[in-house]
Amino acid sequence: MLLNCDLGESYGSWTMGLDEQVMPYINQANVACGFHGGDPLTIQKTLALAKTSQVSVGAHPAYPDLVGFGRRSMNLAPQELAATLLYQISALDGMASCEKLELSYVKPHGALYNDMMARPDVRATIMQAIASYHRPITLMLQATPNADLHREEADALGIKLLFEAFADRCYDNDGALLSRSKPGAVHSREKMLAQVLQLRDSGTVTTVDGSCIELRPDTLCVHGDNAEGVAAIAEIRALVDGE
Amino acid sequence: MLLNCDLGESYGSWTMGLDEQVMPYINQANVACGFHGGDPLTIQKTLALAKTSQVSVGAHPAYPDLVGFGRRSMNLAPQELAATLLYQISALDGMASCEKLELSYVKPHGALYNDMMARPDVRATIMQAIASYHRPITLMLQATPNADLHREEADALGIKLLFEAFADRCYDNDGALLSRSKPGAVHSREKMLAQVLQLRDSGTVTTVDGSCIELRPDTLCVHGDNAEGVAAIAEIRALVDGE
Amino acid sequence: MLLNCDLGESYGSWTMGLDEQVMPYINQANVACGFHGGDPLTIQKTLALAKTSQVSVGAHPAYPDLVGFGRRSMNLAPQELAATLLYQISALDGMASCEKLELSYVKPHGALYNDMMARPDVRATIMQAIASYHRPITLMLQATPNADLHREEADALGIKLLFEAFADRCYDNDGALLSRSKPGAVHSREKMLAQVLQLRDSGTVTTVDGSCIELRPDTLCVHGDNAEGVAAIAEIRALVDGE
Amino acid sequence: MLLNCDLGESYGSWTMGLDEQVMPYINQANVACGFHGGDPLTIQKTLALAKTSQVSVGAHPAYPDLVGFGRRSMNLAPQELAATLLYQISALDGMASCEKLELSYVKPHGALYNDMMARPDVRATIMQAIASYHRPITLMLQATPNADLHREEADALGIKLLFEAFADRCYDNDGALLSRSKPGAVHSREKMLAQVLQLRDSGTVTTVDGSCIELRPDTLCVHGDNAEGVAAIAEIRALVDGE
Repeated sequence: MLLNCDLGESYGSWTMGLDEQVMPYINQANVACGFHGGDPLTIQKTLALAKTSQVSVGAHPAYPDLVGFGRRSMNLAPQELAATLLYQISALDGMASCEKLELSYVKPHGALYNDMMARPDVRATIMQAIASYHRPITLMLQATPNADLHREEADALGIKLLFEAFADRCYDNDGALLSRSKPGAVHSREKMLAQVLQLRDSGTVTTVDGSCIELRPDTLCVHGDNAEGVAAIAEIRALVDGE
Repeated sequence: MLLNCDLGESYGSWTMGLDEQVMPYINQANVACGFHGGDPLTIQKTLALAKTSQVSVGAHPAYPDLVGFGRRSMNLAPQELAATLLYQISALDGMASCEKLELSYVKPHGALYNDMMARPDVRATIMQAIASYHRPITLMLQATPNADLHREEADALGIKLLFEAFADRCYDNDGALLSRSKPGAVHSREKMLAQVLQLRDSGTVTTVDGSCIELRPDTLCVHGDNAEGVAAIAEIRALVDGE
Repeated sequence: MLLNCDLGESYGSWTMGLDEQVMPYINQANVACGFHGGDPLTIQKTLALAKTSQVSVGAHPAYPDLVGFGRRSMNLAPQELAATLLYQISALDGMASCEKLELSYVKPHGALYNDMMARPDVRATIMQAIASYHRPITLMLQATPNADLHREEADALGIKLLFEAFADRCYDNDGALLSRSKPGAVHSREKMLAQVLQLRDSGTVTTVDGSCIELRPDTLCVHGDNAEGVAAIAEIRALVDGE
Repeated sequence: MLLNCDLGESYGSWTMGLDEQVMPYINQANVACGFHGGDPLTIQKTLALAKTSQVSVGAHPAYPDLVGFGRRSMNLAPQELAATLLYQISALDGMASCEKLELSYVKPHGALYNDMMARPDVRATIMQAIASYHRPITLMLQATPNADLHREEADALGIKLLFEAFADRCYDNDGALLSRSKPGAVHSREKMLAQVLQLRDSGTVTTVDGSCIELRPDTLCVHGDNAEGVAAIAEIRALVDGE
């Protein structure tokens, strides 16, 4: 099981995330593409850092909403969304090649990610955009009990999928993350580490009401916003490596 | 001698340029990359139109200045400018590949173009950025009496150049365009056609004070902003083709 | 009955709307505030033009979505939306004062307008923002059979309302505009003029299925995007003036 | 002698500056207006904080360059610059009024500030824009040996000036700040405190080569970017208060 993290989300003079501290622990860097964060120079530096750390890179495209950090759902027409994705993926892909890295996947950001999981029409547009890219590229989405459906959708378009689970978030019985506004939505350190162990050993999580659902993720999403987050990543890394 | 034109400069709901009418007459489309014009959907449509018309495509990157249409000089640090260029070139390159087109050159836009011609440091940054791209790509710049110097600069970095001249603009003796604020800066139709003929037949232009300077351009820049411009392009096309 | 029109929607080098031709026919100019169109210089010129034409001015604020022209719904938190509105209203208000004009009303733009009519929570946020403005300012919204409810909502906050109807659009029985995707959504010239007459004489419209609903608008929204639109405005002006 | 500080420079999800910690020590808050930092909600919160702390507020307008944080000179036409300033001042003024604060001055930001001090044409445009505002508003600029000239320029337009000095920066003999790229440009804590004392007691600074020049500032610019900066502000406050 791999670890992935959103990185390169600084913008101009504003910094965000402890990217340098996070890199040594992760396998996959989801690099912001300029639409919710990540100006060109930040992208370049983030890619160079990933290269040094031998971390795989993915494009982390978003709705065009800098002031909202891509966290607000926007009602784009399918052709607008598809072009917006191809632009961001292309920008990252070319800049990665300049750093002698190969962009290997796409993980939508924020509200776009949520819309992808909740709305079949948005997911279809995203999958079609990725299928229309000029070379094969993998889509990362959330591991849920609907994974088989998502695999069928992807197979029909000839694209590959990566499924991710969340270490620090409580799941409901549908395999969705409990809303952050609800009590218990974000795990304590102990529950987080327990969830990582369970995911590692059985591919399952225990949901908010105590049920057990199967997720079988390929990768775990971790967060390096602050020192506490980095410490958690180090612990998760050790667990995942079976130490 | 080829004809090139700035295209794809619409943005969202705002349209600019008679792209569809211009395409049949030109050889090279300089496609805006989103920083002065050209949202992702406009880029996609412009590339598709170029494909249909069998027109070569180049990236037309700019300073990040949407409200100023890239026409105002900005004092970017070299590393900021280089990353800003690689981002825009990469975005266009990937989107062109999706349309089964190969991006073949880069022509800086507006104030960035002027700064490239006037300031050796900006030109060096642009050339280095293009040299650092992950595959060979040609730089289009203005044909002037300094072309040999520019060729040396490019050779040192291993990049190729395309030189362009302007059909409708009066030149000074240094091979620079006469400022638009000066009388006679923009040619009448007759003078424009005469300049095209002279460029075609001898590679020279007659400057504002009657001198003759050699430019030997590879391509002529034309403008399709309005019906009059499109009519001029049609006439220039006929002249260049030797009709 | 007054005529209002969206104006000042150009942006930098991109022009939109025949503002100078429209001004003589209208009473109220809804001036874009920079978030969907309308850069500072365009705002200043539009206000100066309104001053010359003795046209009232209103702020026409939008979601922060330049590339989407404010036409795509965005899910802003109430406090984000309120601050976004106050910023835009303030910018217009101060710039109007510099032109010795008094900003007299606010009409939300595009998707924000639609959300205001469809979602009570968005309407409440808009009304509360306007109520929190440092001086009284009127809100313009759509005249529908729910006008009494809207008046109650406004009264509770101490703000005044202006109701507008549309000359060229077909209504459904709820007083909503028929979606543009449906046949007959936009009236022919004859139907438009008949609708204006009916609104003028009885304050009613005939809906898509032939019912008659009462709207009693204070003002009619007209569109000056092109020469045809300007001609229609001139005809509507004559009808409204009882000629 | 007052203390002023740039505040409200966060943007959306990106935070910058320890505004809450700085407010108790300063007299004047220079509030970002959205063009280099400061989204509408950040502006609103910053103004509310200033209100609570009984701190005067000024508009801190910038070139339209979010990614460059307004630190890169841009070549705006005078009418573009004037409208850009009036827009930002108006936005802050109205939002301040909503918080029952009166906007009392304007201090240009970053490259615009530098251009104002270095280029008479830019300074003239800024002064004329402020003079064209619909009510009197003071311009804050740098205290230099040219203050008399600046006062004459302002008098001719009927605007008032506030002069600021810098506590932590080394001056050259022209009263300009030594470029940050030069050794000794930024003072150590001891030199900074000595410079504050000298400014307080004699209105002078000792320049890079040991000369003494008279500045007689009305206010001192301080920086609250980090904990060290806040500690310095507390020390400067104590010195200025004569403790």
